[in-house]
Amino acid sequence: MNDRVLIVGSVALDDIKTPWAGEKNLLGGSAVYGSMAASQFAGVDIVGVIGDDFPQEHLDLLSRAGVNIDGVERQKGKTFHWGGEYHENMNDRTTHFTELGVFAEFDPKIPASYREDGFVFLANIDPELQLRVLGQVKKPRLTLLDTMNLWINIKRAELVEIIKRVDAILINEDEARLLFPSPSQAESAEKLLELGVSRVIIKKGSNGAQMFSKQGTFAVPALPLKDVKDPTGAGDTFAGGLVGYLAGCGRCAEGSSPEDIEMAFRQAMIVGSACASYVVEDFSTRRINNITKEKIQQRCDQLYASISCDPVVIK
Amino acid sequence: MNDRVLIVGSVALDDIKTPWAGEKNLLGGSAVYGSMAASQFAGVDIVGVIGDDFPQEHLDLLSRAGVNIDGVERQKGKTFHWGGEYHENMNDRTTHFTELGVFAEFDPKIPASYREDGFVFLANIDPELQLRVLGQVKKPRLTLLDTMNLWINIKRAELVEIIKRVDAILINEDEARLLFPSPSQAESAEKLLELGVSRVIIKKGSNGAQMFSKQGTFAVPALPLKDVKDPTGAGDTFAGGLVGYLAGCGRCAEGSSPEDIEMAFRQAMIVGSACASYVVEDFSTRRINNITKEKIQQRCDQLYASISCDPVVIK
Repeated sequence: MNDRVLIVGSVALDDIKTPWAGEKNLLGGSAVYGSMAASQFAGVDIVGVIGDDFPQEHLDLLSRAGVNIDGVERQKGKTFHWGGEYHENMNDRTTHFTELGVFAEFDPKIPASYREDGFVFLANIDPELQLRVLGQVKKPRLTLLDTMNLWINIKRAELVEIIKRVDAILINEDEARLLFPSPSQAESAEKLLELGVSRVIIKKGSNGAQMFSKQGTFAVPALPLKDVKDPTGAGDTFAGGLVGYLAGCGRCAEGSSPEDIEMAFRQAMIVGSACASYVVEDFSTRRINNITKEKIQQRCDQLYASISCDPVVIK
Repeated sequence: MNDRVLIVGSVALDDIKTPWAGEKNLLGGSAVYGSMAASQFAGVDIVGVIGDDFPQEHLDLLSRAGVNIDGVERQKGKTFHWGGEYHENMNDRTTHFTELGVFAEFDPKIPASYREDGFVFLANIDPELQLRVLGQVKKPRLTLLDTMNLWINIKRAELVEIIKRVDAILINEDEARLLFPSPSQAESAEKLLELGVSRVIIKKGSNGAQMFSKQGTFAVPALPLKDVKDPTGAGDTFAGGLVGYLAGCGRCAEGSSPEDIEMAFRQAMIVGSACASYVVEDFSTRRINNITKEKIQQRCDQLYASISCDPVVIK
């Protein structure tokens, strides 16, 4: 086992419109956003598939960020291409098209050099493929899962199977409710914990994220931002920052106490939220391509200050 | 100036339906919820109007909680009566009827004995009436304002006028956006601060609340609850707990530093969130009618634990 992060997910081209701007053929995909954030803190090995239309410059960008791209397979055909439009509130969006291209036949092959990675982020893809990834790696220290409503609707059994085998799941508010219907988020989270996953992290967009575990619950806010330009990839960037920080901090080693790991996760959520606060400030991964650790530290400090308080003692 | 809390708002009867239950003629109203919570921490003077159908037992309940009801005027006619139904998610609701009754002619008269109250909570009523209340009190140490979309739509100028004259405003996410349209909550909050109010507290229902001031921002989560029975009054209970704690803690005295007051407000938000977490567990004010300070302290501790984290240091 080493301290590298394995990230498996989509590598994509995105056409994005907002009420104020729009761009086409942007670098996107869950594995890309996750890798760019995680690479700030740890070595990253990415696995994905691209078509022959995928620009070399995007691969170069990943390499320059220190991401090992040996696991990115180029195949005949078109790269996964998504087109969508954000509404006035910048939270809701409409999908205009989803062209799977070579992604339709994606069958992740984990290069031998990746199989000892201690940290695995299974970004949003078909849960059957996520299961196949787990079958190809040695026993990682930490596995983190993301998913989406599509898989909850059409592959619930496979999704439940993979949830049982990972350490932590990231899931949106609506997806948690879809998986375990309840007006109470706490109840949906509890049902997920009952499946055997140690941590449930519910993503709430501009309202931050909330983690549930045996050690209690922890809420991290999103940084209040004045200029959100493109929310695409915020959740994957959050996840990438989180898993990258966990890999880099050296505090999830064997023998770490549950309390140590809980605290590392709490701090990692702040780091993830800080990374996500940057990525939404520009299209694609542009804002985090050249971000410094000092900049990330600044926003971690701001987030930390925004949850800092003396204990309450009622007289 | 004394350390009592003056609360002016609606005193109502509510008919409430949820997907699982329903009750009629419940004790409700913003001033009632606010007073029941605030009375846990400070002396409370309530001002409102009721019709001749308002049950004496509801008044007795307020009195037993230590709320001074000298300012509750009984008039010929019907009490303000609201009927609504919550949807499956327990966040959205449909109003079935709003019968203003005697509330239509409400003209708050502040009894002489209330005029030296140091803390004033102007619960949601017509901003013109809120202005008239301020005209009747001596210079309170702290004034807190709540409002609703109706007044933003039909009395924006009067609302802006009262906002300029209070210390803090409580407002829902949607209402903040309605008042100052922007996809960014931070921008709406900033525009409110520019009006001259010192603190903007944005209420986010099950996502807690976020405060903006010159001292920065502070986010308090809502306690994740498994059994929400009736969300009515959660915002007013939050406000009542907040202002009651501020009055009782003795830390908003003249000469307090801005940092002291900021910290008191942060703690007060935790207290407000704890009170709100109780009130939604049963219809009307039932769950907080006989709550103990120990119980409130317990939930403050839980909320505090859910935002507790060591500082993040990125290596």
